[in-house]
Amino acid sequence: MGEVSCIFCKIVRRQSPASYVYEDERVIAVLDIWPLNEGHTLVIPKRHYKTVYEVPDEEVAHLYKVVKKVALAVKRAVGAEGISITQHNGKAAGQDVFHVHVHVIPRYEGQKLPKFEEIQEASREKLDYVANKIKPYIRHES
Amino acid sequence: MGEVSCIFCKIVRRQSPASYVYEDERVIAVLDIWPLNEGHTLVIPKRHYKTVYEVPDEEVAHLYKVVKKVALAVKRAVGAEGISITQHNGKAAGQDVFHVHVHVIPRYEGQKLPKFEEIQEASREKLDYVANKIKPYIRHES
Repeated sequence: MGEVSCIFCKIVRRQSPASYVYEDERVIAVLDIWPLNEGHTLVIPKRHYKTVYEVPDEEVAHLYKVVKKVALAVKRAVGAEGISITQHNGKAAGQDVFHVHVHVIPRYEGQKLPKFEEIQEASREKLDYVANKIKPYIRHES
Repeated sequence: MGEVSCIFCKIVRRQSPASYVYEDERVIAVLDIWPLNEGHTLVIPKRHYKTVYEVPDEEVAHLYKVVKKVALAVKRAVGAEGISITQHNGKAAGQDVFHVHVHVIPRYEGQKLPKFEEIQEASREKLDYVANKIKPYIRHES
């Protein structure tokens, strides 16, 4: 299942490590290893689609229901003042991994987001710690 | 219906002008009057919600199905190389109008998006012209 060399497909197949905050049959949410802020999370369809145009409507719908859920959990877990939700399609838009992913980014007043070259890779230990902070805030449907 | 002084509620009530690319029972898509690039479109729920956290799941689902449809139409109409889809919650995240809206932004390789202070307000004539370019590309369900 998925593309052999795609990092997100590898994560879905459990062939690459990731710090999970959420998983269901169609979607995973894992922490970005290059976080713009603590709690920066990626919500990713399990199936490999390059861009949003290819994602069937019902999967788009489910993906963004999960994004909303994750956004609220991240906001509460890290005490963010705001949340930016971004999704880039195509290299020209800044897409780096060509498997659709939605960024959930904690924001704070007066703080500019770091530039790409300023971001530090986070350790797995740190990411697991942050994921464990977020998970209790995920609302599960009864 | 809606908030008296909210600009997006006014647009929904047809009390303020806007250049429409799409409308249905729950959502409108209109051109941003401060476009980052030609074709920069806002997809907006008709009901007044401040942030995504307040939007019911079914409305989030519908909103983003429309975003996908609009993204593809904008890309084709203006010949964009990429599309960024962004939604900001809270002043700290750069939210300016406190009625949920999703930005659909055409992107081009090697082009940095202008800074806020560099953006020029577009004329209604120009926005209507661009909206008329985009509308034929909107896919309508049969």
